[in-house]
Amino acid sequence: MATSKRIVLIGAGHVATHLGMALQQAGWKIAQVYSRTEASASALGNRLEVPFVTSIEEVCTEADIYLVMVKDAALPELIPALVKGREEALLVHTAGSMPMDVWKGHAHRYGVLYPMQTFSKERKVDFASVSFFVEANGEADLALLKTMAGTLSPKVYEATSAQRTSLHMAAVFACNFANHMYTLSARLLEKNGLPFDAMLPLIDETARKVHELHPKAAQTGPAVRGDENVMGKHLEMLADEPEIREIYKKISDSIRHS
Amino acid sequence: MATSKRIVLIGAGHVATHLGMALQQAGWKIAQVYSRTEASASALGNRLEVPFVTSIEEVCTEADIYLVMVKDAALPELIPALVKGREEALLVHTAGSMPMDVWKGHAHRYGVLYPMQTFSKERKVDFASVSFFVEANGEADLALLKTMAGTLSPKVYEATSAQRTSLHMAAVFACNFANHMYTLSARLLEKNGLPFDAMLPLIDETARKVHELHPKAAQTGPAVRGDENVMGKHLEMLADEPEIREIYKKISDSIRHS
Repeated sequence: MATSKRIVLIGAGHVATHLGMALQQAGWKIAQVYSRTEASASALGNRLEVPFVTSIEEVCTEADIYLVMVKDAALPELIPALVKGREEALLVHTAGSMPMDVWKGHAHRYGVLYPMQTFSKERKVDFASVSFFVEANGEADLALLKTMAGTLSPKVYEATSAQRTSLHMAAVFACNFANHMYTLSARLLEKNGLPFDAMLPLIDETARKVHELHPKAAQTGPAVRGDENVMGKHLEMLADEPEIREIYKKISDSIRHS
Repeated sequence: MATSKRIVLIGAGHVATHLGMALQQAGWKIAQVYSRTEASASALGNRLEVPFVTSIEEVCTEADIYLVMVKDAALPELIPALVKGREEALLVHTAGSMPMDVWKGHAHRYGVLYPMQTFSKERKVDFASVSFFVEANGEADLALLKTMAGTLSPKVYEATSAQRTSLHMAAVFACNFANHMYTLSARLLEKNGLPFDAMLPLIDETARKVHELHPKAAQTGPAVRGDENVMGKHLEMLADEPEIREIYKKISDSIRHS
């Protein structure tokens, strides 16, 4: 159930684009889009059919919620400028790795709404299967953020900043690093004139398996078998790829120590 | 279409179990199971309702196809003993990393049937979505292996030993190493009292994404954004996990160089 609250999107990257569109579709009123980069601001503003601005001073002051989705490094600098004149609003960021306390001493009402998902511009996100982790410095605002996330997904959880930081780091391994393993696989295949598509059934099964088995029980391959022959041959084949070779060694060692 | 050919399974591990059951179900006649380990031999023999033996000398000599599914390291030693007295049969192994020529000088008719998939004892394999790569030293036997694989999956390809070795190494990255990223993620979560299940939607989406985008285009996270803040914080959090910390650094560097 969406309310009549007005939301301003601060940022116009992948997260802002997907989350902004989903919130609007769920009935939330997006009042404005801000991005320092005019091309991004206008692209998302036009997509949502709402006004866009490129300087913080132009951001409207009457919205109820400011949803901040910028690079983590940009957040500390942006906060004081954003809060000024908007002291009564609810200020929320979406970064998994940023503690809620970045708002402390600046805003009165603040919180975090962290959608734990991988966002690419080119791909639609099915928010119904995304886990949201929320936190706020007041009960009413915590309830509001739960309601907000709840209009997008049934999987809404409370999490402290410490828990969220752990979740975010774990997600880097399960998502970002797993994806880089796909990239290295693709690179090795392409080098040998083989199509990456051949790998997709294997990638799918690897992901499906851990729905049933703990990943440690699901582990297969030369390292867990202790198959030195195969590992030696692979390291030889990677002689001209020192960085990938090093990764092969480190991960194989880690599998053996697990 | 299965034939009246009689197949002996040499080995009774995960691959032999899944492949043996699937072949029998597809109408192929499994004549016997061999494994050095009595418990494995009897388990698979009983499951397929066929006789089992634990020494190579007891393996029947009249079968048409011997399908060898043992640890790579065990293969060179096993081959001469197995071929002796079975010179007219088709001898086939299933190891991605073993060249077909391991049979050269021993057998007359030989080949490889490599199902590129991850096999765990506890989990049923849907062979219809598995890619098979086949190779043989004669046209008729190549056709026979294609027929055999074709009764299990529509995805049957010819591949040379060199191509198969590349496929196998690429699979180590896309499957074995990706799975280890899940393991490390699970370990970090468990350490912080968080459930691994929360990661599953993210794992699924990460796998689904590369059906549409090249993995390089699908890459997200602090390393590809160059977000030093977040990476620094993660490395601090991993201070008491030197091995995982090293992997975090190596993979992040590799993402930045990709």
